[in-house]
Amino acid sequence: MNYFDHYHPGLSVDCVIFGFHENELKVLLLKMKNSKKWAVPGGFVRKNENVDDAAKRELKSRTSIEDIYLKQFHLFGDAYRSSDQYVDTLVKDQVIQSDMDSWFRQRFITLGYYALLEFSKVIPSPGKNAELCDWVPLNEIPDLILDHATIIDKALLTLRNQLRFEPIGKNLLPIEFTMNELRILYETILGEELDRRNFQRKMLSFSILDKLDHVRKGGAHKAPFLYTFNEEKYNQSLKKGFNTVW
Amino acid sequence: MNYFDHYHPGLSVDCVIFGFHENELKVLLLKMKNSKKWAVPGGFVRKNENVDDAAKRELKSRTSIEDIYLKQFHLFGDAYRSSDQYVDTLVKDQVIQSDMDSWFRQRFITLGYYALLEFSKVIPSPGKNAELCDWVPLNEIPDLILDHATIIDKALLTLRNQLRFEPIGKNLLPIEFTMNELRILYETILGEELDRRNFQRKMLSFSILDKLDHVRKGGAHKAPFLYTFNEEKYNQSLKKGFNTVW
Repeated sequence: MNYFDHYHPGLSVDCVIFGFHENELKVLLLKMKNSKKWAVPGGFVRKNENVDDAAKRELKSRTSIEDIYLKQFHLFGDAYRSSDQYVDTLVKDQVIQSDMDSWFRQRFITLGYYALLEFSKVIPSPGKNAELCDWVPLNEIPDLILDHATIIDKALLTLRNQLRFEPIGKNLLPIEFTMNELRILYETILGEELDRRNFQRKMLSFSILDKLDHVRKGGAHKAPFLYTFNEEKYNQSLKKGFNTVW
Repeated sequence: MNYFDHYHPGLSVDCVIFGFHENELKVLLLKMKNSKKWAVPGGFVRKNENVDDAAKRELKSRTSIEDIYLKQFHLFGDAYRSSDQYVDTLVKDQVIQSDMDSWFRQRFITLGYYALLEFSKVIPSPGKNAELCDWVPLNEIPDLILDHATIIDKALLTLRNQLRFEPIGKNLLPIEFTMNELRILYETILGEELDRRNFQRKMLSFSILDKLDHVRKGGAHKAPFLYTFNEEKYNQSLKKGFNTVW
């Protein structure tokens, strides 16, 4: 029995892993061995494994993080998204051995997931097919394999859309944060500046923040207030959404 | 070459087709041949076919409708969502021939799509594996095969969520409709009553409706105003969403 016989045919999962660091939104990427190209972390699905669990397994292998919010957002199912040319390169670069050839020459569809991780908790691990696993700022994305640029774009669009109707930030920010830091996170995801006062007013109106008793000390300016997410209300909003418009 | 060799292995698509008729939200279902069970329309994906196109092809076969809003909403990928027992029943009921056995005994993942169709335009067609193709009200769903009940539930949840941030109704209502009819559509999807005045105020605030010069005649009450969707503004809202909260 071939190694790949243990996997569901023609199916992969790909994980767009977002982190927030030094006021930038970053994506965790792998630099492939013997290649100039990068890729989002991904893998195959074992025959007896739920597809969602395969994504979790891959996330854990690359970051050491478990039990994290991981959301499937799109199936990339175009007939010609992977090509023979791509596999030729893999063989030439000795990324894959010749006995894996027929597995990789299948048509693959891939299910895209995204995750929001707290930057400081991630221990990047390249695994056996990559020489590097590292955070890359969204505006410095290098040349990627296959349709991985499209996969990242679509994940970002989904994340932006999500901002409109549910809370975000819990896994992207440290436990305690200032209103400024929260706003900058939103600005980074949206790719546009937001009005300070409007942002604060709206954010407070959702009642998902607890204001803390202590302030952030050490800066040149007046020490800013610190906030934390109210776990219960945050989770309620996640379920019901902000806007019960109707 | 076997018939099924032309299809992508281990993958199906399933379409939850919603229509609105006599103030009820209905789903188009197939009654399987030689079985008491029903199913949502679905099919397999040809080797050289985009997955989205397979869903469109299936939608067209069952409804005669083309070029319609068809949205993938979830991949159902649990390892044991289809079982040998299910295939045993298919063989016993002579729904499948014995040479199709190994195809159907694969593990299948299925990509769920939903579509909103104008009830009056649909010409239901059962195809070769069903004896009936018919609209069923959401509160009268019969016994369904596999995890199709879960698929319908998830589609409805997605539709409800969609109401919160983008317009809906264009393919569910006739071209001209009253505010009452639009509200009843929303109430049906949400499964709850809405305040008349609030609904009208909010709906008008989105600026996606044109008020028509003529009224609906023939009722016992004062003839109600008729509205139609403003195509340009409706499509803009579809792209950008109602709530640019941030």
